[in-house]
Amino acid sequence: MRWDGWGDPDRATPLPASVVGLLRELLGVRADPAPPVRLEEMTPPAPNPAVRVLAEVVGPDWVVSDDETRIRHTRGKSTPDLLRIRAGDASAAPDAVVLPADHEQVLAVLERCSRERVAVVPFGGGTSVVGGLTAAGEGFAGVVALDLRRLDRITAHDTVSRTATLQAGLRAPRAEALLAERGFTLGHYPQSYEWATIGGFAATRSSGQASAGYGRFDEMVAGLTVATPRGTLTLGRAPRSAAGPDLRELVLGSEGAFGVITDVTARVRPLPETRRYEGWRFPTFAEGTAAVRALAQDGPLPTVLRLSDETETMIGLARPDEIGEGRGDGCLAVCGYEGHREDVAARRAGAHAVLTAHGGEPLGDAPGESWAAGRFSAPYLRDALLDVGAFAETLETAGFWSVLPRLAESVRQTLSRELPSSLVMCHISHVYRDGASLYFTVVTAQGDDPLGRWRHAKAAVGDAIVEAGGTITHHHGVGTDHRDRLADEIGPLGVDVLRAVKDRLDPAGILNPGVLVPPATG
Amino acid sequence: MRWDGWGDPDRATPLPASVVGLLRELLGVRADPAPPVRLEEMTPPAPNPAVRVLAEVVGPDWVVSDDETRIRHTRGKSTPDLLRIRAGDASAAPDAVVLPADHEQVLAVLERCSRERVAVVPFGGGTSVVGGLTAAGEGFAGVVALDLRRLDRITAHDTVSRTATLQAGLRAPRAEALLAERGFTLGHYPQSYEWATIGGFAATRSSGQASAGYGRFDEMVAGLTVATPRGTLTLGRAPRSAAGPDLRELVLGSEGAFGVITDVTARVRPLPETRRYEGWRFPTFAEGTAAVRALAQDGPLPTVLRLSDETETMIGLARPDEIGEGRGDGCLAVCGYEGHREDVAARRAGAHAVLTAHGGEPLGDAPGESWAAGRFSAPYLRDALLDVGAFAETLETAGFWSVLPRLAESVRQTLSRELPSSLVMCHISHVYRDGASLYFTVVTAQGDDPLGRWRHAKAAVGDAIVEAGGTITHHHGVGTDHRDRLADEIGPLGVDVLRAVKDRLDPAGILNPGVLVPPATG
Repeated sequence: MRWDGWGDPDRATPLPASVVGLLRELLGVRADPAPPVRLEEMTPPAPNPAVRVLAEVVGPDWVVSDDETRIRHTRGKSTPDLLRIRAGDASAAPDAVVLPADHEQVLAVLERCSRERVAVVPFGGGTSVVGGLTAAGEGFAGVVALDLRRLDRITAHDTVSRTATLQAGLRAPRAEALLAERGFTLGHYPQSYEWATIGGFAATRSSGQASAGYGRFDEMVAGLTVATPRGTLTLGRAPRSAAGPDLRELVLGSEGAFGVITDVTARVRPLPETRRYEGWRFPTFAEGTAAVRALAQDGPLPTVLRLSDETETMIGLARPDEIGEGRGDGCLAVCGYEGHREDVAARRAGAHAVLTAHGGEPLGDAPGESWAAGRFSAPYLRDALLDVGAFAETLETAGFWSVLPRLAESVRQTLSRELPSSLVMCHISHVYRDGASLYFTVVTAQGDDPLGRWRHAKAAVGDAIVEAGGTITHHHGVGTDHRDRLADEIGPLGVDVLRAVKDRLDPAGILNPGVLVPPATG
Repeated sequence: MRWDGWGDPDRATPLPASVVGLLRELLGVRADPAPPVRLEEMTPPAPNPAVRVLAEVVGPDWVVSDDETRIRHTRGKSTPDLLRIRAGDASAAPDAVVLPADHEQVLAVLERCSRERVAVVPFGGGTSVVGGLTAAGEGFAGVVALDLRRLDRITAHDTVSRTATLQAGLRAPRAEALLAERGFTLGHYPQSYEWATIGGFAATRSSGQASAGYGRFDEMVAGLTVATPRGTLTLGRAPRSAAGPDLRELVLGSEGAFGVITDVTARVRPLPETRRYEGWRFPTFAEGTAAVRALAQDGPLPTVLRLSDETETMIGLARPDEIGEGRGDGCLAVCGYEGHREDVAARRAGAHAVLTAHGGEPLGDAPGESWAAGRFSAPYLRDALLDVGAFAETLETAGFWSVLPRLAESVRQTLSRELPSSLVMCHISHVYRDGASLYFTVVTAQGDDPLGRWRHAKAAVGDAIVEAGGTITHHHGVGTDHRDRLADEIGPLGVDVLRAVKDRLDPAGILNPGVLVPPATG
């Protein structure tokens, strides 16, 4: 993973000159005159030696505090995170990176850190885009990133129940490879897929591009093991239970603030026999939305179902070398089908009838295959845009179907108002019987103060989302960026409930301080 | 509802003499010599006048403390509950029944009761079979049953998103009637259907007989309003969210210990165009289980899917006048299909192929229709059994498919060992991709000390369930009966998390004291 951008440095692709020209002309983008900072020039603050005590828990080799390792564990991958680190700001680097070997060592680290008042930032793939890795270190004797990469095995596979126990530090591609050897799959493909981990998926309620067919990650979780400063939580004795509240659902989305998820028992499925992705065109977003809603409510449900608005369709967001190769007029829907051959054939035929009845025009496999080929590439495109002085960021929400049109329009208008000369694109990324999520991409010029402008715009969009009845986040999570809106989502009393849980599990408050749970006021 | 039994007194049906003869011969059942107590003879303890203060909140007409009303709000409908009340024991009667008009009055009642230290037992249909209505009144100035029957409206219906906001006190048949007028259904049909309420379904994680098709009640819940002593929780801004833990899942199953659910926004579906229920016979429970698992994992999934073991099939548990009209050898499966005609036809054809491939023999519509006709009648049968000196009770669990055979066998053996001369019957009542629930019915002679014998047997079964890897309850809930096993389910730390939530929302501890959350020790 690039320390100052996304993914594999060898896959970074600069924008073609023609696109750069368009960005200059349409959005007023000017190349950043500041020369890029090199890793060797970065100087994080001197590490606090207090954290070395953790060597007694995990062994001296597994408490690492060289500059490069610390920088690579600094912040996540939101655009503001990247702009800061590209500008040479390593002030948020942890004092050390601690790499426990197993659940017992995680427990011991948390116990020791509670005693020593060392803040702990659980670290999986490092792909947070909501400030989930930016702990508030004030008042602590130090801050460590707890990197779970050594917990990288499948420890159990129940072929009868179709569950597999995956350690938290397993990266998704490795998890899929190990499962594929056994003929199974999770089917979880978020945009962060190539880097993110099982534990991160659970801690943030990740949702993948094939959620229509495979479900959200939280729906895949049958069981969890969680290390907390007060001991271990082992949850999920049965698929479903009436034994009180479902505590799995309290750990899912807890973003490292209540404990460290060390393994997940996930519901897995047989590898699909076949996959097919297709494109459809709708004259308008409203007509496309009606079609997508019909499939979500009455079926048959494709495995992948997404609908781009007119702007996103026209721009054809894809790999950097394909940007601008738009898909023409109207709104592009991508419908994918995975499974047994007969099942795919039956669902595809049924869905075709519904899509056609709602005014859809079939575009064949090409747009679907193109989407599939570029499905994990958008973050590379963002790096290329940042390189030429553009600012590109995403945000997302979800709402019930009845609020969706106004929600989409309100976010679009707010972004356009707050960021004049910007491109605002939107798609429906995940569908449910009662509603759907909306995913927005905005591209504008960085200008003089990109962080300040974005902070302002993002705040206005947050207001618009809350006012229009959407959730503050559908799958990016809360982190620090959305933390102060949590009361808009669940009320001050709901926030207080989370605080009560945190106080009980993490009395010293060492776990990801400042993330998810807003500090108590007054 | 009978005060001393189940349901509509006019539907009580005595057992035929032939069945009584069989019970005497096979199980040694002897008619109870004690004459039945009449309602007029019952004398609950004098009500504590302290609770009259609630008249200031709800108005004097809505704080009711006549003997009959208090007796009708005493305990739930487990067999031990019925035996106690039939024996004239009204010692657990609340001091008064309080009937709030709306959410605001519920809030005010909780606020006032917190101040006055009056314990509050939220009361819906009164159908708990796990002691969920038996609050521990010690140390309180009084105990009131908070009967929610006046909250009985549909307050919103979003036809686009297919959600409806149902007040907590709505009884299920009334909710279905109101929804049917609008062309919709919940599709939630637990055995308590005719009496239970929407709030109760949510508070206890109820699961209906058609859960394969419509889902469990917790899966139907898009939003909740909860009155707590510390204010209102309003949850569910979107179908799904990554805004932290899902607090809906903390309220679902909270059994009135955290707050009082005053309304539920439920996902509703269009009324099915057609319904069809059929019977299938499998040579053994193992073969039937394999067939049911194949449908649950690979589809197509019927709307109703249940499989009785050999004993239950032979006995043919049904309406009292049909008991003993068994279904012959092997194991009876009931498969029901509800929905659009084409959808039903397609799923039925697909399921037939799977069932046949697994050794199933089609029995046609008759066993399915017979099951459907008697689906809410088992509690009447229990009354008839109690009347002739038999003891009949049910218990349930769930587990992953891989543990299910041993779990079933272990519970069967334990019941047979602890209750010699008993009939033990079992069926798979709810299926999931990763597992299923097991529902047991036991019939034995009351003998001299039915409560003591049952307490002993139930404890042994609980141990067996925990040891075999099942959940302590799949859909009956925790109440007081399973409370001291909650630590077996979620660990002492999990229990402590629930306690933290309760302490925060209900600092005075007035809400259903002793239910769900075990008291702190030491």
